[in-house]
Amino acid sequence: MSSDDELRWRRGARHPGSDYKIFTTHFVDATHPPTGKSKRFSIIEAVDWVNVIALTTSNHVVLVRQYRAGSDSICLEIPGGMVDDGESPLEAAARELEEETGYTAKTWKPLGTVLPNPAIQGNRLHSFLALDAELTASQRLDTSEVIAIDVVPLAEVQAMLRDGRIDHALVVDAFAQLAFSLGPLVVPR
Amino acid sequence: MSSDDELRWRRGARHPGSDYKIFTTHFVDATHPPTGKSKRFSIIEAVDWVNVIALTTSNHVVLVRQYRAGSDSICLEIPGGMVDDGESPLEAAARELEEETGYTAKTWKPLGTVLPNPAIQGNRLHSFLALDAELTASQRLDTSEVIAIDVVPLAEVQAMLRDGRIDHALVVDAFAQLAFSLGPLVVPR
Repeated sequence: MSSDDELRWRRGARHPGSDYKIFTTHFVDATHPPTGKSKRFSIIEAVDWVNVIALTTSNHVVLVRQYRAGSDSICLEIPGGMVDDGESPLEAAARELEEETGYTAKTWKPLGTVLPNPAIQGNRLHSFLALDAELTASQRLDTSEVIAIDVVPLAEVQAMLRDGRIDHALVVDAFAQLAFSLGPLVVPR
Repeated sequence: MSSDDELRWRRGARHPGSDYKIFTTHFVDATHPPTGKSKRFSIIEAVDWVNVIALTTSNHVVLVRQYRAGSDSICLEIPGGMVDDGESPLEAAARELEEETGYTAKTWKPLGTVLPNPAIQGNRLHSFLALDAELTASQRLDTSEVIAIDVVPLAEVQAMLRDGRIDHALVVDAFAQLAFSLGPLVVPR
């Protein structure tokens, strides 16, 4: 039982769940033919998400701080959001950066794509590095958004990642994608 | 509008959603007193999760490969799962490692805790480093689990993180927590 083909489950009936606006749910019955195992999986559907590490010419990172209802806490994050209909991930990233912070950038590099939680969600998170970001506009927030902006030296952001002041998993992922271009992982013993 | 207190929303009525077994949903009405903004938030509740980077004495990582219904794909991951009632995160991590792979380890180090998705979820992910892991038992899988085990050199795992063969965000987070103990982030320009 080791090839990907042998691990694959076969999907059967799909049953609707509920609409939560920013995500919907459904159920899918699936079987694993080689073992005869079967299960009804609960699935969350959402559009793709984007994240932006925006760096100024002086190597400061544009962070956002906002109330998050899931954790009922104030969360330190990077700008990001949902990819709208008809948008590319890069277009969504540039739009979210400008709407949430008023910053724009001319040089963009993709940092990669991850699956936020493939066990129950099918959507993807696309992260970007925006270089030489500049404040060129005002925040344009949704009627339900309240977002503060902190512009913080990259070295301080790394300290925040290390000590847990930045603990939003999807934000950590973007910095991980930046970090993994560095040298080999060394394991402390 | 910059202190955490000024950013905080005040929670009002809570409305039940649905029970999906591995998570439940509810809605919460909240207002932001300083601006008068209000919103009904959709919330996913789940127990805390754990993740384990298990390293053998020869610096190989114990990976698991399994079908994931959210993404409808085979996913390369590290062992992990849900913290059961009455368990500590460390106990859950050791149990999941042994159940999913048959490996056990004597030396455990916490890598830190992240919030998988604080916008809509309140739960936490606790990651651990398990050193000198050894195969001491057989897999003990749930009736709905089919999991293959790959034992892979750490350097190869880092290549997998870099090229996207490992793209499960919560797995990337554990390796990020390991990586952030390294040197300063260098930004490619």
